[in-house]
Amino acid sequence: MASSGSWKPLLLAALESNAHLKNSTYFQLATMASNGRPSNRTVVFRGFQEGTDKIQINTDTRTNKIEEIRHCPFGEICWYFADSWEQFRIGGRIEIIDGSSTDPAKLMQREKSWFASSLKSRFQYLGPAPRLPVVGKEPRKVNHLDQSAGPVDTFCLLVFDPDQVDYVNLKSNERLLFTFRPTGDGCQSWMSEKINP
Amino acid sequence: MASSGSWKPLLLAALESNAHLKNSTYFQLATMASNGRPSNRTVVFRGFQEGTDKIQINTDTRTNKIEEIRHCPFGEICWYFADSWEQFRIGGRIEIIDGSSTDPAKLMQREKSWFASSLKSRFQYLGPAPRLPVVGKEPRKVNHLDQSAGPVDTFCLLVFDPDQVDYVNLKSNERLLFTFRPTGDGCQSWMSEKINP
Repeated sequence: MASSGSWKPLLLAALESNAHLKNSTYFQLATMASNGRPSNRTVVFRGFQEGTDKIQINTDTRTNKIEEIRHCPFGEICWYFADSWEQFRIGGRIEIIDGSSTDPAKLMQREKSWFASSLKSRFQYLGPAPRLPVVGKEPRKVNHLDQSAGPVDTFCLLVFDPDQVDYVNLKSNERLLFTFRPTGDGCQSWMSEKINP
Repeated sequence: MASSGSWKPLLLAALESNAHLKNSTYFQLATMASNGRPSNRTVVFRGFQEGTDKIQINTDTRTNKIEEIRHCPFGEICWYFADSWEQFRIGGRIEIIDGSSTDPAKLMQREKSWFASSLKSRFQYLGPAPRLPVVGKEPRKVNHLDQSAGPVDTFCLLVFDPDQVDYVNLKSNERLLFTFRPTGDGCQSWMSEKINP
């Protein structure tokens, strides 16, 4: 029987109990390539969008995933916590916020995410185009970045808006399915149900 | 410029250098759901099929992924090694080998994989159907399994046959793209190319 309840407190608890692991904020994001095949890569959790359940990810506009998300905006995150043996499979829709956005609030989110990144992370967006063949032993052209400079064109914020979360705890052998459903009064809320692991 | 070379030695080296991590043999497998959305979950590496590059995975025939693979046989594995900072994105085609196979060699592979699993792992295939709602506090019906008994009907071997591997080493900042290509003499072989990370 389904009851109301969100997955977010479980995820926050998992993040805390696995915080000592360097890669506890890494997860795998699956999208669909334009040839109809699934595509899967590790990305870094950049926090929730303030006051929401939406998950933020930074990426380079020149990566394949941008083209893939434009073609099909649905994705599934698989986030496994190695110490607590918990897995979150988070399905939802992905929004791309790049420098061409005309919404000032979205541009501000993108800027905020840029400044929240380390200088080392920001540097990556100035490198040569990901996945193109390496040409010679080209010296790195840019070796200085002004700390106060805003996001470069290649910097992009992805906002992942979940509508289903399949949670499993391999220690307690419990599994919960969370779905975002209409409540009847025109709103939507998270419902959870115990399912077999 | 592409040159001949396989990704398998790199993967074997990563498995060895990360062997002290309990979950170094876990990776994320993305497939396509029948509603056109990507689907993603953690599975366990059960070795290579003898003398090949094919990756073996055990699963329950009652899980969603079986229906998904029947609908679209392509998948992408994302395998991140937390200690050596290496990622393998392995694209390929998945074959399902369940008890209904009529090929004796395949049935033997399935049986081999069953007996290579721990008794605890084998037990899982006797539990209630995954993802169905939990009904009451049903006592576990089966609490004994004959060690010498062969695979149960719900046990299934997946054989993942790679055709592309995108390898990145985040320590050395090197990335290699491996593709399985025709060699001109009617055969195929692995070629590798250095690409930008």
